[in-house]
Amino acid sequence: MIDGVAPLQTAGPNEVSFLDNSRYVDLLGRSSAGAIIVHPDYASLVPATSQAIITTDPYASWARVCALFHPSAHVEAGIHPSAVIDPTAHIDPSCQIGPNAVVDKNAVIGRRCVLEAGCVIGPSVTLGDDCHIGANGVVSHAILGARVRLFPGAKVGQDGFGFAPAKGAYLSVPQLGKVIIGDDVHVGANTTIDRGSARDTVIGSGTRIDNLVQIGHNVVLGQQCVVVAQVGIAGSTTVGDFTQIGGQAALAGHLDIGDKVQIGAQSGVISNVDSGAVLLGSPAQPRREFFRQIALLKRMIQRH
Amino acid sequence: MIDGVAPLQTAGPNEVSFLDNSRYVDLLGRSSAGAIIVHPDYASLVPATSQAIITTDPYASWARVCALFHPSAHVEAGIHPSAVIDPTAHIDPSCQIGPNAVVDKNAVIGRRCVLEAGCVIGPSVTLGDDCHIGANGVVSHAILGARVRLFPGAKVGQDGFGFAPAKGAYLSVPQLGKVIIGDDVHVGANTTIDRGSARDTVIGSGTRIDNLVQIGHNVVLGQQCVVVAQVGIAGSTTVGDFTQIGGQAALAGHLDIGDKVQIGAQSGVISNVDSGAVLLGSPAQPRREFFRQIALLKRMIQRH
Amino acid sequence: MIDGVAPLQTAGPNEVSFLDNSRYVDLLGRSSAGAIIVHPDYASLVPATSQAIITTDPYASWARVCALFHPSAHVEAGIHPSAVIDPTAHIDPSCQIGPNAVVDKNAVIGRRCVLEAGCVIGPSVTLGDDCHIGANGVVSHAILGARVRLFPGAKVGQDGFGFAPAKGAYLSVPQLGKVIIGDDVHVGANTTIDRGSARDTVIGSGTRIDNLVQIGHNVVLGQQCVVVAQVGIAGSTTVGDFTQIGGQAALAGHLDIGDKVQIGAQSGVISNVDSGAVLLGSPAQPRREFFRQIALLKRMIQRH
Repeated sequence: MIDGVAPLQTAGPNEVSFLDNSRYVDLLGRSSAGAIIVHPDYASLVPATSQAIITTDPYASWARVCALFHPSAHVEAGIHPSAVIDPTAHIDPSCQIGPNAVVDKNAVIGRRCVLEAGCVIGPSVTLGDDCHIGANGVVSHAILGARVRLFPGAKVGQDGFGFAPAKGAYLSVPQLGKVIIGDDVHVGANTTIDRGSARDTVIGSGTRIDNLVQIGHNVVLGQQCVVVAQVGIAGSTTVGDFTQIGGQAALAGHLDIGDKVQIGAQSGVISNVDSGAVLLGSPAQPRREFFRQIALLKRMIQRH
Repeated sequence: MIDGVAPLQTAGPNEVSFLDNSRYVDLLGRSSAGAIIVHPDYASLVPATSQAIITTDPYASWARVCALFHPSAHVEAGIHPSAVIDPTAHIDPSCQIGPNAVVDKNAVIGRRCVLEAGCVIGPSVTLGDDCHIGANGVVSHAILGARVRLFPGAKVGQDGFGFAPAKGAYLSVPQLGKVIIGDDVHVGANTTIDRGSARDTVIGSGTRIDNLVQIGHNVVLGQQCVVVAQVGIAGSTTVGDFTQIGGQAALAGHLDIGDKVQIGAQSGVISNVDSGAVLLGSPAQPRREFFRQIALLKRMIQRH
Repeated sequence: MIDGVAPLQTAGPNEVSFLDNSRYVDLLGRSSAGAIIVHPDYASLVPATSQAIITTDPYASWARVCALFHPSAHVEAGIHPSAVIDPTAHIDPSCQIGPNAVVDKNAVIGRRCVLEAGCVIGPSVTLGDDCHIGANGVVSHAILGARVRLFPGAKVGQDGFGFAPAKGAYLSVPQLGKVIIGDDVHVGANTTIDRGSARDTVIGSGTRIDNLVQIGHNVVLGQQCVVVAQVGIAGSTTVGDFTQIGGQAALAGHLDIGDKVQIGAQSGVISNVDSGAVLLGSPAQPRREFFRQIALLKRMIQRH
């Protein structure tokens, strides 16, 4: 009888666990878990006291099993009396609107959306069904698809960084575009996504963006991209589908980045990138070349 | 008859567009815009169906034309009933104070300021005329000039990172200074500017700071600097006027950086910098030297 | 008679100042301070008009003297009428709860805590005594020790970045852990700390975290670590005690970092690190080796 989930180190006989990362294979033999989800390669290492659940994709299976034991919180329809809702806003009655949330003029909030405490939805913003806006998040000048999730403090739709030098001062360029976010996009805590200047900033469906990421005006991110924490993408750069960008990497502005590109952590991309490229370093170069340079420098130091 | 603005790709016969970046010159000939603002060098490429508006500074002209069609939102004087205003605060009656905004004791808010929803103005903070504080921004221990704009979630005036090791623990050093911000400064979304420790943190007039920037205690930034997203400036560093700092660059503490310095993206500055220098790399060095090193490493790899 | 504190440049005869950083030794002889806290090495440079206060640890002494003149603000017990407190939350009557603060179900707030304006404390969160949560901060799924301080906009306890590719989409892995924070921890403005996935994210007592830092799910940070602004620590990495991480450094996921490690600014750590190591560069390497490589490259450029 399994009644919960836990990591290998702490799982007991009534809990299910998993092994996904070969770094932790040592923990497998010592685990007291009642059942362990593993890849066929490691099935023989599961202790006799555990039931092995064998699958070629243990992490996805773990996700599904966890969701069985810990289903998403139920949406509790209702508007907290402290929320400030403009009378022209349209909020589906199935939504859950938290304390001190603010919804401005003509905003449209789809079915079963959750607005957590203190979040601010600007005028004419549209949210699709089942969106979830974290506490103290701010959304303006934006159209969100279905099932979009903003984590606490994310800021979407503010003016981008646009100005022209003119007579010894900077003249702001009016920012007129929107942020268009597809379905099933996640935006991390305290991440910032600027509205477009003349065209729109676009985030493709299924893309996952981590915390403290900066996305400049007019950026177009493809579908199912993965953008790890603290990445910066400068204005007007276009990124294809399924591209993955490691933590703290930076992409210069006005670039074209292809599909299925892999950009390593802390890389600095300063020119266009073909689909499928695997890059690392600042300035970014093919990952193999980067590591060859590192190795060469080490050898040279030893010689000197 | 022109009735709007749009980028080259989408502008129609009733819209004005512009070309500022030579990367997009291919779009010029194919544009259906009714009028196009261009540099004299590209005037001959404007299609016959468009009226060329020729200027040596197309981006500034574009800014002005956009502002004609899209003037800044009118300030709607009034305090939202949900705002919490301390009775000792002084708010000019021309201000627009949004839902759930908080203004603490003895704060002084100048004429025509806008405080968006959920922002928090601490005790004794002073805002000049025409300031705009974005949603959920926080300002304490600060004096702001006129026309200062904080984008949503910016945090100005919190304690800096100051402590001394003492008997196996860290002892906080009381942070006693303010943040002094000149006129016409912009501070990006979720950017953080710490108050000074014993002296003040100072941001010079006209300086533009992008999103997710960190400015440590006692930093002095000159006038009309440009600080791109995710830059970090460590405590007590002084930066001159008109200096530009690229995205994700870091400046160590206690440095003197001159005027009109250009620091490239992701650079790491660890020593003082003379005015006019152009730097790149981590540690930062003259940009030319940086690129020569990169080229040399590439050649060496090819030989090995 | 001393009645205040000030830096060397501005201190007058009635003020005490200090010298801690040898960069500022030039200011010592010119200071008008009535008293100056200095290391014995510099005592002879204190001007005749100043009283030298000699100590081997001037910065800690300065911290103590500042605290005498500027004691922490008194906690003013009371709950602002605009705060939204769930009836099942337990808040000690000695607490100060600011305007528009939100405290959710079953949260427990210890004695003399301060919740600043607009902060949001999620269901079942526990705060020890004397905690201070800055304006617009958000805490969920967390247990905080005593004297924990979150600066404005810090986000603690949101879901981490966990998902598995499955049938052409990303499947979110339920995040089930908490954030456990020890005593005397400081968390900087707009910093983000994700809750654990299956185990907990842990921050050891006495650790100081600066602004805009990202700490991924399951990270374990030891005691009295120092984490400078804009650092990123990826998921499941463990860091020992007294380790110091410079600004903008990145630590990859699933690493073991020892005690008393020093990681330089902008470093990229991609493998395990022994206690006591001193690292710099991306990828990180022993600091000495890093500077030898830099020097070698410079010499080679001069030759070519």
